[in-house]
Amino acid sequence: MKVNEIGEIGLIKRIGGILRSEYLGDDCAVLDVGPEYLVVTIDMLHRVTDFPREMSGEDIGWMSVAVSLSDVAGMGARPLGVVAAMGVPGDTDVAFVEDIARGMDRCARTYGTEIVGGDTDQHQELTMVTAALGLVRKDAVKRRSGAKPGDLLCVTGYLGTPAAAYKVLIEGREASTEDRQVLVRKFFRPEPRLGEGMLLSDYPGVTAMMDVSDGLGKSVYELSAASKVGFLVYADRLPVMDAARRIARDHTELLDMAICFGGEFELLFTVDPGTVDRIKGVGFTVIGKVVDSGLTLDDDGRISEITCKGYEHLKKQSDKEH
Amino acid sequence: MKVNEIGEIGLIKRIGGILRSEYLGDDCAVLDVGPEYLVVTIDMLHRVTDFPREMSGEDIGWMSVAVSLSDVAGMGARPLGVVAAMGVPGDTDVAFVEDIARGMDRCARTYGTEIVGGDTDQHQELTMVTAALGLVRKDAVKRRSGAKPGDLLCVTGYLGTPAAAYKVLIEGREASTEDRQVLVRKFFRPEPRLGEGMLLSDYPGVTAMMDVSDGLGKSVYELSAASKVGFLVYADRLPVMDAARRIARDHTELLDMAICFGGEFELLFTVDPGTVDRIKGVGFTVIGKVVDSGLTLDDDGRISEITCKGYEHLKKQSDKEH
Repeated sequence: MKVNEIGEIGLIKRIGGILRSEYLGDDCAVLDVGPEYLVVTIDMLHRVTDFPREMSGEDIGWMSVAVSLSDVAGMGARPLGVVAAMGVPGDTDVAFVEDIARGMDRCARTYGTEIVGGDTDQHQELTMVTAALGLVRKDAVKRRSGAKPGDLLCVTGYLGTPAAAYKVLIEGREASTEDRQVLVRKFFRPEPRLGEGMLLSDYPGVTAMMDVSDGLGKSVYELSAASKVGFLVYADRLPVMDAARRIARDHTELLDMAICFGGEFELLFTVDPGTVDRIKGVGFTVIGKVVDSGLTLDDDGRISEITCKGYEHLKKQSDKEH
Repeated sequence: MKVNEIGEIGLIKRIGGILRSEYLGDDCAVLDVGPEYLVVTIDMLHRVTDFPREMSGEDIGWMSVAVSLSDVAGMGARPLGVVAAMGVPGDTDVAFVEDIARGMDRCARTYGTEIVGGDTDQHQELTMVTAALGLVRKDAVKRRSGAKPGDLLCVTGYLGTPAAAYKVLIEGREASTEDRQVLVRKFFRPEPRLGEGMLLSDYPGVTAMMDVSDGLGKSVYELSAASKVGFLVYADRLPVMDAARRIARDHTELLDMAICFGGEFELLFTVDPGTVDRIKGVGFTVIGKVVDSGLTLDDDGRISEITCKGYEHLKKQSDKEH
């Protein structure tokens, strides 16, 4: 059996079974280093799947760091440092690699941290791997488990923006110059929600949290599996930027963009209704609630199951679960 | 200017200039997490340069974890956890990937730690990236700086083994079945010197330390730059396994294997002469001493400069500095 027959999720399950580690299952591994928890995550991006030709070197560096800092944000931690490995084709311009380094540095420093170590290697395909570290008070760490029926389901910022940008850039979907600029900027320079994550971590009423990098559909699936609960999501509450709405051909595509595409750098969290008023300082939208079981989408009274499992790299396009 | 014109060292210098981080320069970055230091490193390996076809999946997994644990050993730290990213071609057998995971798990657990997180992605070329974390008492961390003239230069285990294995495996150099087995085993299943590193870290008389993964030549260069000292190395003291000696065509090649090839997982350290007797529990060889300046090889009275800078991935073969 080949890797592309079982897909990323299937492969991760098998690897997880072999590693038998209690640390797997959240955005970051949580390690005890004394007074606080250390959280750590690793992410691999590469040219073919993750870096459209339109991205500058700085964009690539920025995104590579942002993707792992987003996992640190998902735990409610403050960033401690980032290490990065870069695989570079030998015929790459040195100036382009320097631009990547500049983008990495800028992203890390924007969020109050640094690139503290790295490795470079010659590689057939441009490959960026970042591991981000964070620290968080032991009573403040947020995990995927902890959501309770009755809690509200919330998300920061907007959903569907990367999907809209992808349709414009890669599929050639028409867009106004302004919409195009807004969408591509959001896509190429994602902003991990570190400030929001740290603020939310202070509230015990925030019961579970993760980032939405694999899409809302996969994320609610993960939260439900970890917390052993279900979710009811209201389609009309999904926050989508106007620029992204204008890209969608119809309502069905809009929902697919907001739920199934992924590439989001927002935080998805559940919160006790009594705490909602106290976290108003964080910009977020209530999009649904925690229920006993099932992953259900309520689209103006039409009830359906949320089946998409988010973005999968390893499966052949035709095999993708949507 | 292209990446393969300036090589790995040139590229790292340029990237380091952009990142302006005080954390670069040792085997690991050293971060303050309260009572202890957290050390972290990242290493990227891939099929073309690092994994000969003769390696099993388990060998590949083992080596990928060992290479970053060796950096943790170089700091005198105890391992805390490893995160790993795996880029896998879609047509790879799932069983092979499971073997890789098994090798990673086995290596980590052999040294008392675990794979605590990971990422997988489809990739044109098999690519393994590991980031290892360690903890070390603040007064016990070992860096590349700290060597003082008069200190002795020491190395654990043997040098030149990976070079000998490479010549047998890749260049088809003749070897007895037994020699071949011994060399290939050492090459494919390297043993990071974590126990030795932790023992040595307890002695303030051990003044500087690093692993020798890029070869002795590059390592003494790095130690000399960080400690602002020179080194005198005695050729006849370089510890080379008999099986490796038998592979070398002549004395000159033997020295090249022991000094310039790299792929070693040994610890190179400097020690105050007064401390040498107290660290006898660690198996090591005194191979030279710290002097005021210069990198000098004394080969039975013939004096030469150690010019090789170790293994460089990014330069074209013909451009390699030797």
